[in-house]
Order: sequence, then C-alpha cells, then structure tokens
Amino acid sequence: MNKEVLKREINDKVRLIDQALDRYLPGEQVKPGTIHEAMRYSVFAGGKRLRPVLFLASAEAVGGNSGAILPAACALELIHTYSLIHDDLPAMDNDDFRRGKPTSHKVYGEAIAVLTGDALLTLAFDLIAGCGQAGVSPNVVVRTIKEISGAAGTLGMIGGQVVDIQSENRSIDKDVLDYIHSHKTGALFRASVRAGALMGGGSDRQIDLLTEYAENLGLAFQITDDILDVEGNTEKLGKTVGSDIRKKKCTYPALYGLQESKELARNCVDRAILTLKNFGAKADILRYIARYVLNREN
Amino acid sequence: MNKEVLKREINDKVRLIDQALDRYLPGEQVKPGTIHEAMRYSVFAGGKRLRPVLFLASAEAVGGNSGAILPAACALELIHTYSLIHDDLPAMDNDDFRRGKPTSHKVYGEAIAVLTGDALLTLAFDLIAGCGQAGVSPNVVVRTIKEISGAAGTLGMIGGQVVDIQSENRSIDKDVLDYIHSHKTGALFRASVRAGALMGGGSDRQIDLLTEYAENLGLAFQITDDILDVEGNTEKLGKTVGSDIRKKKCTYPALYGLQESKELARNCVDRAILTLKNFGAKADILRYIARYVLNREN
Repeated sequence: MNKEVLKREINDKVRLIDQALDRYLPGEQVKPGTIHEAMRYSVFAGGKRLRPVLFLASAEAVGGNSGAILPAACALELIHTYSLIHDDLPAMDNDDFRRGKPTSHKVYGEAIAVLTGDALLTLAFDLIAGCGQAGVSPNVVVRTIKEISGAAGTLGMIGGQVVDIQSENRSIDKDVLDYIHSHKTGALFRASVRAGALMGGGSDRQIDLLTEYAENLGLAFQITDDILDVEGNTEKLGKTVGSDIRKKKCTYPALYGLQESKELARNCVDRAILTLKNFGAKADILRYIARYVLNREN
Repeated sequence: MNKEVLKREINDKVRLIDQALDRYLPGEQVKPGTIHEAMRYSVFAGGKRLRPVLFLASAEAVGGNSGAILPAACALELIHTYSLIHDDLPAMDNDDFRRGKPTSHKVYGEAIAVLTGDALLTLAFDLIAGCGQAGVSPNVVVRTIKEISGAAGTLGMIGGQVVDIQSENRSIDKDVLDYIHSHKTGALFRASVRAGALMGGGSDRQIDLLTEYAENLGLAFQITDDILDVEGNTEKLGKTVGSDIRKKKCTYPALYGLQESKELARNCVDRAILTLKNFGAKADILRYIARYVLNREN
C-alpha cells in the first residue's frame, strides 16, 4: 500500500478510537462531574493514540478484525494517560505542561489528579473485561488482562518509573538506562502489540515475531524521544526542549552522543521491519508506524 | 455453629489470606525492591482482611469453596489497601498514621506512595484474571472483573472519595453523607459479597439477597466507624480519636446524635441478618461478621 493510503488508514483508526473513548468515558453530567471532566480533559489532550493503533494494527496483521476488541484498544490509551497524569505530579516529575496544555494537577489540583489516574486505570480493566461480554472469547480476555496488567505493573511500566525516579540527579550506566526505557515505555508498547495479536487470533509464532517487532519499536521510540528533547521544536513537541538536560536525566544522546543515537534508532527500526517479512501486506501499517517513529517531530 | 467455632473459622480464613498475599506479592529482593517493600509494608500493616473474608464467606454461603478463588479474595484487599495509601496522601486526607503505623508516604515519600497504590491496583486485576488460569470459568472471571472494577471506579469507591474531598469544611446534608458512604466504603463491601457469590456459583436470587446483606452491612460499618471516632479508644483504633470533628467532616453522630446513630447501626445489622434467613448454617460466618461490625473496637 502506498504511504497516503496507509496514512488515511491510520487516521481512520485514530478516529475510531477517539469515538470509542468518547462513548466509554462517562460524561461530565454523570455524578461526580469533576472526575469525569478531569478524565476527559487528559484523555482528549491531543494524544497520538499510538498504543491503541498498534494494538488494532497487530490484530489485523494476524488476520483479526477491530470490532469487538475496540474497548481493549481504548484501555491501553487510558493506562498510558493515567501514567502520564501521575508522572506529572509535583511529587514525581513536577511538570506543569503536557502536550502544550496545563497538566491535570494544575487544572484540577493534586487530589483530583491522583484520583483521575486511579479512575482511568480502573476503567481500563473494566473495558477489557467488557470485550468478554461483547463476543471475544472470555479465555482470550483473561489472557489479555494478564498480559496488560503484567506490563503495567511493577515488573513493567511502574517498575521503570520507580527506577527513573531513583536515578534522577545520579549518574547511571547503560544497563540502568535500558532498564528504565524497556520498562517505562517498552513494556506497554510490547503489551499493546502482543494483546492485539492475541485478541486477533494470532499463532504463538506470530506473537513471538510481533513481540520482537514491538521491542525494537519501543527502543527506537525512546531513543527518538531523547533526541527530540535535544533538537526538537518546543512548539511541535508541546513541552519544553532541553528539560532532560536541566533535570540531569540520563538519556541516549548524553550517553552515546547524537549521531550514534540516531544510528541506534535506525537499526532498531530496521530490525523491527525485518521481523515482519512474512506477514505480507496486512502488516503494512506496522511497517509504516516503525518508519514514522524514526521521523516523528513530536 | 457456636461463637468460638466461628471465630476460629474466620481466623483460619485470615491466615489463608495472609499466606496467599505473601505468595502473590513480589518479594523485596525482586527488582525494583523499594516498590515491593512498600507494597508489603502497607498490605501487612494490620488490616482486618474484612473484604476478602466477606468474599470467601459469601462463596461458601452459596455452596462454593475457597481454593481457586483465593487470588480474587486477595485482590479485594489490595484494592482496599491502595485506596488507603492514596487517601492518606498530603494532597488528600494528609494522614501521618494508619493502624498505628506511619503511612506509606511518611516512610517512602510521596512519589513511591502514589506508585505503590497504582501497583496494588494493577496487581489486583492481574490476580483476578489469574483465577481464570487456575480453574475458575473464564466467563465467571470476566463477570467478576466487571463487578469489582465497577465498584472501585468513579461510580463507586473513587466517586465517594471525590465527593468526600469536595465536602470537607462544608456543611452537607443527609443525601450527600449517604452518597459518600455508600460509594466510598459500601461499593467495595457490596462487590466483595457479590463477587464471592458469583465465583461460588450462586443463583441470581442468592446474589440479590447477599447484595441486600452487603448494603446493610456496609452502612452499619460506616456508622460504627463514625461512632468509634467519637467514643473509641485511640490505642485500639490505631488512629487519633476525634479527627473527624477536627476536620469538620460530616458524620452520622454529627447529623443524628450518638444514640440515634447506634440505633441506626443496629437496625442495619438486623436487616442484614434477616436477608440470610434461608441460607442455613453455611451463612453463619456472614451472620457473625454482621454482629461483629456492631460491636467492634477498631
């Protein structure tokens, strides 16, 4: 498929996800209104929907279709959003802006921001379980919940955040940097792809290959994230460039230099695309996403 | 069954739950150690295990047995513990002590306390899903997750906490007080009983009756909680008596007076026990718990 067609297909998926999120999130008129408003504020603050798109594209890559599994796609976005809200708290990264908008605790106060994160995480599991009442085999739903909860927990995303916090203002080595990234960002990327393949009815072999794709993609994403913090555009990024350096965070450019970091990211993307070689045209969106990650501006 | 036998049966259940929690919570030697230490610190800080005991006793009341559903029992305790950790945060209730011990954020700092709550909530859903791989029908597991996530979310426990926060230092009426309690405490009580009955294989009629039991029990529990804050013993309670009054929190004694509050709690317990009249001896533990709630000292 050509680039324009793929771009349109991804935009269609994003629209599908946005509409579904709007259906699944309680309205602001539902009591207590504040928390529902705060949930919507952060979920509709301009996220790229990368994880749910990856999930849906992986399901398609193994021959599945998007219908009944859409709630699980949305669940991944809710988990991602909850993690951002809690990461931004004063006690954590203390960020006032995210995607160019004031963070949740700046708008709603810290108490509501904590509860909003809690609520999004809780709703995420509610939505995945809901797939079991909407036609997906309950057995597959249970496996998907294990996959996603494992990736979101202390052996995954939360673990990465813990080590990240404990590493601030300290010099860390490559192993620690890899641990942080493969857990904080990588684990949920990996789970998005694996859960999509699982819910799409993929074979064990297909899931293994897509796992390799996801691990390379996740690493490329994090490296480009670090690069953008050095040479990105504050306006396009929606956050202040150079904040990693000011916070003395350990990053790929700091550890390897800018050129070698770019080389590393390119190698990851090449490897990601290589693992898809037997998937045919059904995996074109996954290939497109891999290339997009390398060239993104935000 | 006589009182001593029932007491022993409950203690056996508590021991079973504690041993299971110890198995399911990652050890402190598992990386990152801090978060696993913090999770264990709060989970093993002297909780009464009321929700998991209610869950197991409800499963037995409908003829089920405890084996494969123990992870779900533990999940309820993890959700309860996470909610306490987040409630105690400086941005929320700002409590330094809980059950006579320093709260999570006093020991580990706010960032780790937030993440510890997140981690316990995440692990809870992981454990329930695990029941589906340990012999419980995946269909029942999916329904249980819907039940518990619904009760823990913004239309349940989190909703109650939001309204509670928004009501501090304001005069509120009976309806708001009822909303706070039926959501903040009641919803998870109700879900513990309903999920137990569901996983124990109860009929719709049995689940309905047990729901009525749980709603009355939850209200009685909250009223006695308010009463203990007025006339309890600080040492036995493990928290400072009179803190509700100092925080100008709306409570049953403040709204109805002490004597009428006690009368209300007694009526709730009577009604709870009445709903169990056709359950026979299998529901003796549930009856015992209802009486215990009325006479508890902490």
